[in-house]
Amino acid sequence: MAQASQATIGSSEFDRDTAVTRRAEGVYAIDLSADWTIFNAVNGGYLLAVLGRALSQALPHPDPFTITAHYLTASRPGPAVVRTETVRTGRTLSTGQASLHQYDDEGNEVERIRVLASYGDLDGLPDDVRTSAVPPAIPPLDQCFGPEDGPAPVPSGSALTDRLMIKVDPATLGWALGQPSGKGEMRAWFGLKDGRDADPLSLLLAVDALPPTAFELGLSGWVPTVELTVHVRCRPAPGPLRVSVTTRNLAGGFLEEDAEVWDSADRLVAQSRQLARVRLG
Amino acid sequence: MAQASQATIGSSEFDRDTAVTRRAEGVYAIDLSADWTIFNAVNGGYLLAVLGRALSQALPHPDPFTITAHYLTASRPGPAVVRTETVRTGRTLSTGQASLHQYDDEGNEVERIRVLASYGDLDGLPDDVRTSAVPPAIPPLDQCFGPEDGPAPVPSGSALTDRLMIKVDPATLGWALGQPSGKGEMRAWFGLKDGRDADPLSLLLAVDALPPTAFELGLSGWVPTVELTVHVRCRPAPGPLRVSVTTRNLAGGFLEEDAEVWDSADRLVAQSRQLARVRLG
Repeated sequence: MAQASQATIGSSEFDRDTAVTRRAEGVYAIDLSADWTIFNAVNGGYLLAVLGRALSQALPHPDPFTITAHYLTASRPGPAVVRTETVRTGRTLSTGQASLHQYDDEGNEVERIRVLASYGDLDGLPDDVRTSAVPPAIPPLDQCFGPEDGPAPVPSGSALTDRLMIKVDPATLGWALGQPSGKGEMRAWFGLKDGRDADPLSLLLAVDALPPTAFELGLSGWVPTVELTVHVRCRPAPGPLRVSVTTRNLAGGFLEEDAEVWDSADRLVAQSRQLARVRLG
Repeated sequence: MAQASQATIGSSEFDRDTAVTRRAEGVYAIDLSADWTIFNAVNGGYLLAVLGRALSQALPHPDPFTITAHYLTASRPGPAVVRTETVRTGRTLSTGQASLHQYDDEGNEVERIRVLASYGDLDGLPDDVRTSAVPPAIPPLDQCFGPEDGPAPVPSGSALTDRLMIKVDPATLGWALGQPSGKGEMRAWFGLKDGRDADPLSLLLAVDALPPTAFELGLSGWVPTVELTVHVRCRPAPGPLRVSVTTRNLAGGFLEEDAEVWDSADRLVAQSRQLARVRLG
């Protein structure tokens, strides 16, 4: 683990690669980085963070409280334009829309992702907590496994692997040993490899970074996201996050993935659900 | 229960009151019915069904697979206009956006709701089911309680009550007797009072029709929805539905409500999550 560098919020790989440049009112440019790809596909959580950052600049409130993305066509590393629309501004919440566009091989503009979100200010929320949820039972970080822990457990071979610290609970690693549990569960410790702490934007990345639960259901292959909704409920404390992902319903060629993200202070900082297609393997 | 009339899909109160009239390409008119209000507020699920119906007419695919609504301002009974945009059309999925507008007292157009959704054809899905979810444990319908079951259990007094058959599991009715369980759970049988069977559009209503889970958490008052996302996973079989709603995280003045809807064939036909504000009472 590259603890040495200890990047900080605002000055890290993640911040550099999600930074958008304002070109005009509601128009932002970005060069999508090839460093956040997995098998040549740009990671969906990274893309959501890019759109989330554009909206945090376009709207009067800084933090995504609830953000939904529909993934339309596969994004590629390279230049892209984000267009935002302010739908409504209120005292405590504002709602915005954003879409990311690129040129295809014929020079036609293609929309990659469409996002709808409501933003607020996490620091303005009261401290009341009445939650019945408990943090996922994950063994200590040094008893979990990542791609760097040898040829066996987690397949590597994507640029994204070098950006993220992901240590998977061995109880949800059966698939990597050819013995999937049959349960739709995946749990892991999550961080950015350069040591940058989590913030609301990097939570958008955390919810879509683990291996697919479909692997533990005995499926292989690609599980493309159709739609992903993230609720950011609290500003995360410094330190690694615990992410738990559950699938209850694989049917008709689709499945849902529900993620919970817990911070080092044992607070539930984000909840997400995505609808994804499965290729039965 | 008004079993006598036995309305059918296409010919029922719900179909009549969600029908939209096409005025132009991507423009639909509707008169929002006062019959779907609760304490003078137009029900959010009814509104989502109206927008869902407009999108099912505007898009090449008929069924909402995943639909997200952001509630911007309070809708009122009366004339409204829905504007749709086709974002992308694909072979098996198409994505669209819709918004509902009304005039305010000063004659200014106000946006009430913004929706983003991907549609497909439920009848075109394969039959595979690998689900670990089980139907909620709800007592038989005649052992559950609705507003018509006497002055005690469920407060009545809204037009919506006369449209819906809702019979709440007594295990989640403590709040009505002044003894909330402290658990964020609500379970009920659900149907349309005129006997119309469920279809994908009425599922959009089913997920937001039960009393708020906040009541069982000991809170009273209004729980306005900020955002609601529904995944429709299967065309429901005829007969009453079972709806289970769970809240795990009440914090910072917000809570999530996760709903599952099961049909009479024991299939999980819809999953939803909403982010709502709470007024601590």
